[in-house]
Amino acid sequence: MQSNNNILIAQGGGPTNVINQSLVGIINGEKNKNSNIIGAINGVRGIIDNNFIKLSKFNDVNLKKIQNTPGAALGSTRDKPDEKYCHEILKILNKKKIKRFYYIGGNDSSDSLRIISNYVKEKNYSTQCIHIPKTIDNDLVKNDHTPGFGSAAKYVAQLFSGINYDVRSLPGVYLGIVMGRHAGFLTAASSLLRKLSSDGPHLIFLPEYSFKIKDFLEQVKKIYDKYGRCIIAVSEGIQDNKGNLISKKIIQNNEYDAHGNIQLSGSGVLGDYLSNILKTKLKIKRVRADTLGYAQRSFLGAVSEVDQKEAYNIGLMATKFSIKTSSPFSVAIKERERFDAKYNIKIIMNKLEDVAGKTKVMKKEFYDTKTFNVTKKFRDYCLPIIGKDILDTLSII
Amino acid sequence: MQSNNNILIAQGGGPTNVINQSLVGIINGEKNKNSNIIGAINGVRGIIDNNFIKLSKFNDVNLKKIQNTPGAALGSTRDKPDEKYCHEILKILNKKKIKRFYYIGGNDSSDSLRIISNYVKEKNYSTQCIHIPKTIDNDLVKNDHTPGFGSAAKYVAQLFSGINYDVRSLPGVYLGIVMGRHAGFLTAASSLLRKLSSDGPHLIFLPEYSFKIKDFLEQVKKIYDKYGRCIIAVSEGIQDNKGNLISKKIIQNNEYDAHGNIQLSGSGVLGDYLSNILKTKLKIKRVRADTLGYAQRSFLGAVSEVDQKEAYNIGLMATKFSIKTSSPFSVAIKERERFDAKYNIKIIMNKLEDVAGKTKVMKKEFYDTKTFNVTKKFRDYCLPIIGKDILDTLSII
Repeated sequence: MQSNNNILIAQGGGPTNVINQSLVGIINGEKNKNSNIIGAINGVRGIIDNNFIKLSKFNDVNLKKIQNTPGAALGSTRDKPDEKYCHEILKILNKKKIKRFYYIGGNDSSDSLRIISNYVKEKNYSTQCIHIPKTIDNDLVKNDHTPGFGSAAKYVAQLFSGINYDVRSLPGVYLGIVMGRHAGFLTAASSLLRKLSSDGPHLIFLPEYSFKIKDFLEQVKKIYDKYGRCIIAVSEGIQDNKGNLISKKIIQNNEYDAHGNIQLSGSGVLGDYLSNILKTKLKIKRVRADTLGYAQRSFLGAVSEVDQKEAYNIGLMATKFSIKTSSPFSVAIKERERFDAKYNIKIIMNKLEDVAGKTKVMKKEFYDTKTFNVTKKFRDYCLPIIGKDILDTLSII
Repeated sequence: MQSNNNILIAQGGGPTNVINQSLVGIINGEKNKNSNIIGAINGVRGIIDNNFIKLSKFNDVNLKKIQNTPGAALGSTRDKPDEKYCHEILKILNKKKIKRFYYIGGNDSSDSLRIISNYVKEKNYSTQCIHIPKTIDNDLVKNDHTPGFGSAAKYVAQLFSGINYDVRSLPGVYLGIVMGRHAGFLTAASSLLRKLSSDGPHLIFLPEYSFKIKDFLEQVKKIYDKYGRCIIAVSEGIQDNKGNLISKKIIQNNEYDAHGNIQLSGSGVLGDYLSNILKTKLKIKRVRADTLGYAQRSFLGAVSEVDQKEAYNIGLMATKFSIKTSSPFSVAIKERERFDAKYNIKIIMNKLEDVAGKTKVMKKEFYDTKTFNVTKKFRDYCLPIIGKDILDTLSII
């Protein structure tokens, strides 16, 4: 064991609304241990570039503000380190005598950390690698849910609830494209603030189930005939029965203009495509499509207070667990066995290799393939995560 | 004068987050006069279709919930009545012995009401026509601002503030397309929660000023070179120097696919187009475009408490003004002369014909054509309308 107390923290991947809660949770936990706390600017990129900042200097008032701010306060990176890159990182960690390296990130970041921790073992170095989960996609295995998801889910739920009242006023079809390339959790969250059985979203399409235009048209027609309106949540990651992304197929089939300017690789394509199919095939005039965009992970003012608290505590608990072990680990919210009891979470340690780089998808019991919608079980699982109920204050005529 | 006390209320045009505040303001005001309060379902369409609802029956608890709910509780319509349609409406109003007709709506709705009120005079009928303003576009003349705008502005400001922290974490270019076909108020509101001089949006493009690709590229390059990132707010209504909508030009120039399915008339086109220009001409890799969509007028949970209160009071005050006069009128928030004093609004009556069907645009002093951004004067004008400050709780490292 090294006698020093140098601690490094970095943030990786797409930022969230509460990633700074975890950061400050770690800082406060390590402050209690009188550690010398260092931050790497822009994730692992900052380690390679020797771009560090002293984090011990921030006082409680500063830290309180930082933890409430969306985005990654230390900056993030999309760098996906290969073996050589990881080797380079380790050399620097060793040179700077880093006792513990906390990396806050999702699937990719945890996988980088796994590679680094393997080198640590191989070289007989002493840096402990600790993964702190965050992802709005909620797709880490052995995690009941991940910090960042609750706030993104709340934003999506509030957006679709508002849209529900909007489309009641001016009937038609509304399509909202939601983030989530492999897992449908965030798209499913669009359902959470439904109040009446006639409330939208009436249909939900997830990446876990192959998307057929025939089903899509049939289901929309059924709902539209019944209510005179239809609200649909579609994951950006929907695929055909061969696993090809629908959005990729649209872009490939599409024509370029003569000047080569319009490449249509932007985000509006899937929504526009599906909306035009409804207009042409079902002859519905009023069809609107929105692609929800980056506000899903960063919108200021829709944060879940449950998500905030959990993100902070998961950072803080990691600093406590690190006293018990010097092995690498990934901290997590333990998977609940039942969703009908009082909401109560437990923070645990997972083995890093059990979590790193793996993808969790929606449980089968969370989705009804007959109604193309989520089940009560999903709502029971997910509702407590988005925080306090705002629906009791609302009513239609 | 008729001896009866039948009062009709209808809601028209795009719904907002606070249009039901005005509705309940009118109901409560008329309840005090022991009126028989009737609602038309789906705006003027409900009058023609004989689709009415008794509003006197709702108690205070119901009304409190209805006023907090986004969307038009009575339903709305996009019908733009012609002379014959207006004539038909008037016949029914007269047959139902409607003493006062309150129509909550924007430019088009106020113009329909103007036509109806002219017929009232011509036929010597006694229905009083009262226009209650609402529009997220904020483009009614002789109104300091309109109910609905404050909440939409708050949503747009919060979204861009969150994006600001997101893009600080993962640098690149972000383009957000904001609603507002003729007036740039809502796009300009993207600036309201900037805190540091380096905060985005760094560039704002409005429909009031002709859009030149050359300027656009130059300005983005300048900001990107300076900060390594650039956040841009673009109005959906930007036009070339001949007054042609840029989005319309893109759709017209675009190719259709062989199956005729992809018509690209959806909402993602302008953002994707501008984003691709930046990628190809400036060789910037990370460019993201979002089109903000319908959440701007309906998002549940970003409502401005100032907007709520004003929308309610404007409905309530209209019922009080109606005691003083039997002429048609449009109620309004009086235009402030100074924006640096304590925020204080006054509700007044305008002549209906002075407001109806006219469009207000941004004052010249609100926009700086050199920096392609809004002025301090605009922020002084607009900040109080979005309600309480949430920025003091935030910080970056």
